[in-house]
Amino acid sequence: MVMRTHVEMVRVRYGETDKMGVAHHSSYLLWFELGRTGLLRAAGHSYRGLEAEGVMLPVVEYGATFLKGAHYDDELAIETKIREMKSRVITFDYRVRRGEEIISRGFTRHVWVDTNSRPRRLPDGVTEAITPFLASGD
Amino acid sequence: MVMRTHVEMVRVRYGETDKMGVAHHSSYLLWFELGRTGLLRAAGHSYRGLEAEGVMLPVVEYGATFLKGAHYDDELAIETKIREMKSRVITFDYRVRRGEEIISRGFTRHVWVDTNSRPRRLPDGVTEAITPFLASGD
Amino acid sequence: MVMRTHVEMVRVRYGETDKMGVAHHSSYLLWFELGRTGLLRAAGHSYRGLEAEGVMLPVVEYGATFLKGAHYDDELAIETKIREMKSRVITFDYRVRRGEEIISRGFTRHVWVDTNSRPRRLPDGVTEAITPFLASGD
Amino acid sequence: MVMRTHVEMVRVRYGETDKMGVAHHSSYLLWFELGRTGLLRAAGHSYRGLEAEGVMLPVVEYGATFLKGAHYDDELAIETKIREMKSRVITFDYRVRRGEEIISRGFTRHVWVDTNSRPRRLPDGVTEAITPFLASGD
Repeated sequence: MVMRTHVEMVRVRYGETDKMGVAHHSSYLLWFELGRTGLLRAAGHSYRGLEAEGVMLPVVEYGATFLKGAHYDDELAIETKIREMKSRVITFDYRVRRGEEIISRGFTRHVWVDTNSRPRRLPDGVTEAITPFLASGD
Repeated sequence: MVMRTHVEMVRVRYGETDKMGVAHHSSYLLWFELGRTGLLRAAGHSYRGLEAEGVMLPVVEYGATFLKGAHYDDELAIETKIREMKSRVITFDYRVRRGEEIISRGFTRHVWVDTNSRPRRLPDGVTEAITPFLASGD
Repeated sequence: MVMRTHVEMVRVRYGETDKMGVAHHSSYLLWFELGRTGLLRAAGHSYRGLEAEGVMLPVVEYGATFLKGAHYDDELAIETKIREMKSRVITFDYRVRRGEEIISRGFTRHVWVDTNSRPRRLPDGVTEAITPFLASGD
Repeated sequence: MVMRTHVEMVRVRYGETDKMGVAHHSSYLLWFELGRTGLLRAAGHSYRGLEAEGVMLPVVEYGATFLKGAHYDDELAIETKIREMKSRVITFDYRVRRGEEIISRGFTRHVWVDTNSRPRRLPDGVTEAITPFLASGD
């Protein structure tokens, strides 16, 4: 089985920049969100559909580092893979690329919960579907 | 009865600016939101409490004009009053002031709905409470 | 000459929703921004390039009406055309469509300014390039 | 000398919530920003003033963990102190408290740069002014 990385393209919006002239550091979290929902969709499961089934995926931890600023109108590739997947916790890793240049790396950690915020297991089928995106030691 | 204007102070956040060096024009809608929830609170009714009672106030129309830019860290006064109040529709008017200078004017129009998005009347007591903020011909 | 409308597709982001379960009304201004910069790009002029030449296009007025809410993950078409174009002022009209359903209409009015915020004329060539998007009486 | 923590009060805005009904995880970065600029102001140096002198403080790393969600209209205390201060790097630590309950912890790491994004030392006087907020082993 080949390990997969999901790539989501995003263009920096004007409203995402700040007076320093680059994308505000909070914008990356929105792009990471696009990355992981894109990965789920590529695996055949929309996050919207999961929520409709009563499964939610709140963020319990995140982190990011920044090597370069992202400018208005830059086209960025949000590369997403799964670092770790346990019965109730999932961690996504992200790389933000502008052409060949890596400008940021980050991660988000989530728990699967039901609509009452109680931890729950992932629905059948989802684990199998997203396993190809699970990193294996790199 | 004296007509009242609610004044809410807000300081421009760094993340609200864009690369033009001023607050992005969408930020004003967040400040208007602070203005009208401040007005409701001053009238003894929190918007949070209204939602808990099943009353919501979605925006059906808005508009704004801009005379000057708002800069990072500027302290702004958001002046809010009620332009018009009908059984199911309410219109708020806003003025954004920096010191003595008016930098923006705007309005938002809302309908009262229940949790199923059906129009509903305002709960008893709320109309009386907010009437002092109703503009009378100026 | 055929009058053109620019169509930009946008998918509602999770972070753009609010606790009412629909896209916050301020999000539409970000989508309108994508619409007009998409129109400029389709006309052969990137807004980024215009700014690099010292031309900026601040918003002096906006307005919008809302017929339906936009939900997370909805795919929306932002239809943009030019309502009016004078030597120093330009007005864009927007329609937000979900499939066949119009969910919002809006406009933004802008002035062309230089980097010192002084009004200026549009660079040569830009007027001609965007004229096909100018509405003619509908 | 007593070690100080700066406390900035913030109320959760409606537009900061998402459809899960709590503040979107990106909102905390905006609140951390209020925390550190509040700390600088309490130390007698506005960040706005530093930028006017040509000193900027971009984020090179951040992280946060979430224990509880923050709801619309919650009043939160953003507690900020300085974890570490080197000649060119500064790290702030944050705790978000709702009453007696800690709902989130986070940090941001920054470099001091000039307007050309070149690393630079902190202006004289600033180091002394903010030293009281430097954590000492707790």
